[in-house]
Amino acid sequence: MRWAAEVAYLGSAFSGWQRQAGSVTVQGALEEALTRLNGVPSVVEGAGRTDGGVHARGQVVSFDTARRWEPSRLRLALEGNLPQTLRVLRVAPVDGAFRARHDAQYREYVYFLWTETCCYPHLAPYVWHNRTWQDLEPLRACCRLLPGTHDFRAFCRAADCPDESRRTLYAVTLLRRGPIVRLRIRGRGFLTNMVRIIVGSLDAVARGKRDPSWFASLLGGKGREESGRTAPPQGLFLWKVGYVPSPWRETSEENMRATGVEE
Amino acid sequence: MRWAAEVAYLGSAFSGWQRQAGSVTVQGALEEALTRLNGVPSVVEGAGRTDGGVHARGQVVSFDTARRWEPSRLRLALEGNLPQTLRVLRVAPVDGAFRARHDAQYREYVYFLWTETCCYPHLAPYVWHNRTWQDLEPLRACCRLLPGTHDFRAFCRAADCPDESRRTLYAVTLLRRGPIVRLRIRGRGFLTNMVRIIVGSLDAVARGKRDPSWFASLLGGKGREESGRTAPPQGLFLWKVGYVPSPWRETSEENMRATGVEE
Repeated sequence: MRWAAEVAYLGSAFSGWQRQAGSVTVQGALEEALTRLNGVPSVVEGAGRTDGGVHARGQVVSFDTARRWEPSRLRLALEGNLPQTLRVLRVAPVDGAFRARHDAQYREYVYFLWTETCCYPHLAPYVWHNRTWQDLEPLRACCRLLPGTHDFRAFCRAADCPDESRRTLYAVTLLRRGPIVRLRIRGRGFLTNMVRIIVGSLDAVARGKRDPSWFASLLGGKGREESGRTAPPQGLFLWKVGYVPSPWRETSEENMRATGVEE
Repeated sequence: MRWAAEVAYLGSAFSGWQRQAGSVTVQGALEEALTRLNGVPSVVEGAGRTDGGVHARGQVVSFDTARRWEPSRLRLALEGNLPQTLRVLRVAPVDGAFRARHDAQYREYVYFLWTETCCYPHLAPYVWHNRTWQDLEPLRACCRLLPGTHDFRAFCRAADCPDESRRTLYAVTLLRRGPIVRLRIRGRGFLTNMVRIIVGSLDAVARGKRDPSWFASLLGGKGREESGRTAPPQGLFLWKVGYVPSPWRETSEENMRATGVEE
């Protein structure tokens, strides 16, 4: 029986998404939990392969169970076999052909920066503490260049760059709320480190080292050596993954996450 | 030269405010840092003596330095001698008679609860995960009883209860924002565990074990055994301490915390 689940995790507790012998990874922890429930080795597919240190608020995964489950019981049984740093927000039975990675219509990442002198220790694990992002106008000029289909080769970790490095972004917004700056990027798919290298390149503009015309030039298939540094992982959240139809349509009230949380 | 400083800390990193041999405490860490700067043993006074596990967003402390300092340099020098879990938001030179504890006009505490089935691991260290606080109306009826001067003996850890256990509260508000419930209490002064026992007693009402008339009866000098349990520390923040005049009036721009943070 196939399932979709939405999971949230503390990036600092894992060496990234992908299963790796000898490392604590999100996929590894989920597969161990599921293997315990199923009694046979079980595989979990995730919509986004987050790097070590990157958080998830709304990662979506798919997997099979050996037997039928009542959804809220399956959610609890999974959580009971997972560390507190990895939580299962909701689960839903899905069509047997559903695949979290392949079927995702979009992925949305959010990157947070803290721009004041001193950062509350409660927020420090979830932001890049960076005082240079004061004037957002040149950065917004860069962000307006991003939507559409571009060769994002300059924004991919060199060792991981595929031959086909064009990707499509749907929407990019940059806003300030007091000392917090939030970059939200929605796209069809992302290259390795893509959001973090976009943020690092915006940072070169924020520091006055580069300007928006330089940023524009990066979108023409330039190499990784041309773009900015890779911004630190702890500011980045895999925020949401979208599917059509939504796997969550028929989840019961009991199993629903609050709709009051800002989307 | 006397100073006021506003500090924030992660409650889970300390065995409370008060200096104790053999324990890592907030006062102990601040006094060690200051002693290093002053070259002689130095004392720090705090406005609120938070328990172990209780966070602070706006604790105010007072202390003396052996020499003159430029405020932003003093802030940096202190932070350089403190762990990342304890940050100095701002410092200001104050009148030689200023005392953080004695001169505080009010203290404001905020307690956060998370009322949904599943809690994001990013928020879990800062909330009481408690699904019973759904209908806030009976709890608001209790909160409306709190402002004014009452004998709060029922809301004080028995071992620490002073002979004079009357205290004055100025304002108490309870609001919901999606899955988060926030209780804000402003008062002249507080007894040991007072906010946590208020929350634990509200919880007895939330669970339907007690009603607002029971809550009202507690305010007439009842004993600790009559009230609810002590709510867990991690939902509690010492949010703000107020002074007249404010010690921060003359802080320079460089040394100012953002005013954009929700107060």
